[in-house]
Amino acid sequence: MPIIESLITVDKKLNVPVYLQIANSIIGHIRRGILKPEKALPGSRVLAAALKVHRKTVVAAYDELYAQSWVDVYPRKGIFVAKNLPDVQPKSIAQNAATNGIAAITYYEVGEQQVPFPLQFKAPAPQNIVFNDGFPDTRLAPVDLLVREYRRFGNYHFTSKYLMYGPEQGSENLRNELARFLSETRGLQVSPENILITKGVQMAMYLSAQVLLSKNDTVIVPDPGYFMANEVFEHTGAQLAFVPVDDHGIDLNAVEDICKKKKVKLLYVIPHHHRPTCVTLSAERRMQLLELAMKYRFAILEDDYDYDFHYASSPILPLASADYYGSVIYVGSFCKTIAPGIRVGFIVAPQNLIEQLTRLRRMIDRQGEQLLEEAMANLLKNGDIGRHLKKTNKIYHERRDVLCRLLQEQLGEQVSFNIPDGGFAVWMQYLNGLNAKAISQKAAEMGLSISDGSGYYHKNDNCNFIRMGFASLNVKELEDGVEILKRAVEKVS
Amino acid sequence: MPIIESLITVDKKLNVPVYLQIANSIIGHIRRGILKPEKALPGSRVLAAALKVHRKTVVAAYDELYAQSWVDVYPRKGIFVAKNLPDVQPKSIAQNAATNGIAAITYYEVGEQQVPFPLQFKAPAPQNIVFNDGFPDTRLAPVDLLVREYRRFGNYHFTSKYLMYGPEQGSENLRNELARFLSETRGLQVSPENILITKGVQMAMYLSAQVLLSKNDTVIVPDPGYFMANEVFEHTGAQLAFVPVDDHGIDLNAVEDICKKKKVKLLYVIPHHHRPTCVTLSAERRMQLLELAMKYRFAILEDDYDYDFHYASSPILPLASADYYGSVIYVGSFCKTIAPGIRVGFIVAPQNLIEQLTRLRRMIDRQGEQLLEEAMANLLKNGDIGRHLKKTNKIYHERRDVLCRLLQEQLGEQVSFNIPDGGFAVWMQYLNGLNAKAISQKAAEMGLSISDGSGYYHKNDNCNFIRMGFASLNVKELEDGVEILKRAVEKVS
Repeated sequence: MPIIESLITVDKKLNVPVYLQIANSIIGHIRRGILKPEKALPGSRVLAAALKVHRKTVVAAYDELYAQSWVDVYPRKGIFVAKNLPDVQPKSIAQNAATNGIAAITYYEVGEQQVPFPLQFKAPAPQNIVFNDGFPDTRLAPVDLLVREYRRFGNYHFTSKYLMYGPEQGSENLRNELARFLSETRGLQVSPENILITKGVQMAMYLSAQVLLSKNDTVIVPDPGYFMANEVFEHTGAQLAFVPVDDHGIDLNAVEDICKKKKVKLLYVIPHHHRPTCVTLSAERRMQLLELAMKYRFAILEDDYDYDFHYASSPILPLASADYYGSVIYVGSFCKTIAPGIRVGFIVAPQNLIEQLTRLRRMIDRQGEQLLEEAMANLLKNGDIGRHLKKTNKIYHERRDVLCRLLQEQLGEQVSFNIPDGGFAVWMQYLNGLNAKAISQKAAEMGLSISDGSGYYHKNDNCNFIRMGFASLNVKELEDGVEILKRAVEKVS
Repeated sequence: MPIIESLITVDKKLNVPVYLQIANSIIGHIRRGILKPEKALPGSRVLAAALKVHRKTVVAAYDELYAQSWVDVYPRKGIFVAKNLPDVQPKSIAQNAATNGIAAITYYEVGEQQVPFPLQFKAPAPQNIVFNDGFPDTRLAPVDLLVREYRRFGNYHFTSKYLMYGPEQGSENLRNELARFLSETRGLQVSPENILITKGVQMAMYLSAQVLLSKNDTVIVPDPGYFMANEVFEHTGAQLAFVPVDDHGIDLNAVEDICKKKKVKLLYVIPHHHRPTCVTLSAERRMQLLELAMKYRFAILEDDYDYDFHYASSPILPLASADYYGSVIYVGSFCKTIAPGIRVGFIVAPQNLIEQLTRLRRMIDRQGEQLLEEAMANLLKNGDIGRHLKKTNKIYHERRDVLCRLLQEQLGEQVSFNIPDGGFAVWMQYLNGLNAKAISQKAAEMGLSISDGSGYYHKNDNCNFIRMGFASLNVKELEDGVEILKRAVEKVS
């Protein structure tokens, strides 16, 4: 037993709450195989004494582990590492995986295709309440923190160096802080060399697609899925292969069926709160997907833009955190954390791939905004981002619950939905033959902008599912919005 | 006389100081030809009374006009619109040129090629004096002005709208202000619909190349030229055709020779202070080049990043300002005006091309930094950019003169150069068989970073020309730099 206590280090000066440090540390050891399934864990009193923390802290840590399914609790026996864990054994992203998977690619080709682009995100009528696609509330954006950082830059002599040409790969300070943040929040053990700072997930996808894909390559994408991602893949001349999505994420049998028929180059997945259906890819499927990627040698583009907004318990660790083979490109963003208009995202990948991505990035726009990147680095370092995430998670959690309760109360007979584990939207189906398009039109007349159900599926635009963003509306606005929606539904019934 | 007063409107609620509103208004009327050269302006008392402002305000406005050389002051006679204004007669970019040139292209192809990328801009040894490639002095960057704008955003309720997804084409305010700025400074009559805001000239080049070029298309580029531009063109799979550059710019006979042999799709030109040779394309050649473009139906990518820094007299109006046929894509930047690290540039082109460029831009990174773009819009509107340009032009003008004098005094027998009309660098040839590489090595040992002459020409890396950036060094640093250079030259002689 003393072994376990000695594996755990607690640093009360860190921003991460102590109970999470303990939980994350234990998760790390389970993933590394040091703590095997069914291994007994020390009682909370014992561990608390050993770590010199309050017993409640250890109880909270164990609660967290239980909520995340890392441990089984048997009354009167104790706490054990869960029996049915996928045998996750995370590693730092393999530096020497260069002979396998994407790490082996040294140069890239650019495909050839003529692609028409729909220009979306048209502005809704002013004054309307908007159930948008699932965006954060910019009224909560910590502009004051950003401005504080900019003000400090204005006073410093060294600021002039951030105004010159800088590293194409992104601010070194930001990459250092981000490596720490990713380790603490996601169990991703990466060094700053594995990170490229981008302008949001959009640029991360564009760069990855351009570097990895050639004309007629096959890319597996979910259907319904994210049209902006599909557009980026098609722009390279690659062919899309669609797989369905159920309550636990993408259908892996469908993935394997495609792999058996043709060579697949890339698979695109949104593991947390799939867009548009809001489902979370289960831990079991994550491990299976990694196995498929190894077996059929395709790369995975893991778009985890929503990881930091999870309300159900803790989010599931990324595929990239258990990726032995260097087959995962992990992309994320602070565009939901700060604001969509503040474009800071990142790619985590093997170093030789990062080098190629960086070269393309340099050709596109030379570098990011250094002052913004330095400001982000400071906000991460100071713990401002962590605090802001806590604050907004609480608010969005409440807004999700309010919307779901209102829908149930007001429209319970007319709609069906699952409560999403996190994110910014609810995926809702209209029942009783209700037509999403008609409702959307009627609602617009009554002062509510809401999806008409088009654009989610690759082919069928007549589905009666819609995505309802709740995060950017406060409780009053949600109430008013659902009230209008109810009246619109009544009118078209 | 009452006419002039009636032309000027003053709004004390605006952020722009009243004296600047008056000055800017008068400048606008001079530029529009309403106030002709040598026209008498009203006395300060008269104008102050008419506008209901303090006389000192009018005096300050006139001082501003005098500092900017818009008026002549004759003691005891009064103030007159200056006699020697450049006779600006701008033309609008032909809206109806859609059947000719680039305006006719509706979709684009992406070429196919494997391109290796050199990673440049390695950091010099710290403490060294650096004759860089020709960058502005970031110590002079108006960070305080930017920070002032950001602070204001922090206080405004409406700021939240700039934090949401915004226009892919760039801030509407910035495009409006830029249209005015381009008209006033360059005689370019464009509407905001003709403008796409980019991340510097780099992104402007990337987007233009991707949209216009296909595999095996021919692009004419100058040699010596700008390697970053060449790289962007080659990345599309296009073939480069090189033309020489003399004291008046690119050799048009060489251009026509190529056009006679094959179909040319695009020609790339830096009309002000060609990189690396610093020469200005003469007015005569500008008109000839436009005629060639019409005759052989190629598009011109006019990279006028250096327009705002001209010391000799007035800069020559852009090709785009005399482009009847919609064959010029005009790209520029504020990266030299504010700082290289503040990435704001623009493309001016026919509207249907702008639409395509915008679609690609959206796919790459969705949009620019809205807060930065709004800040730039305010700085343009308030006249802050104009004042900053005047101030820095004066400083860089002086630094150019100091460097040229020092080179003449210290190394007159060993080097040869022409004084450039503007920009940030001097193009200098070592004489007497002096070797640029040996001098660069020796200088580095002595604390001076200076070009070794490589990378300017497409093929010949053994030339003895180097580019010496003077703008980022103050007079003392220039003196120290030339002193070290002199000793290095002596050592290798």
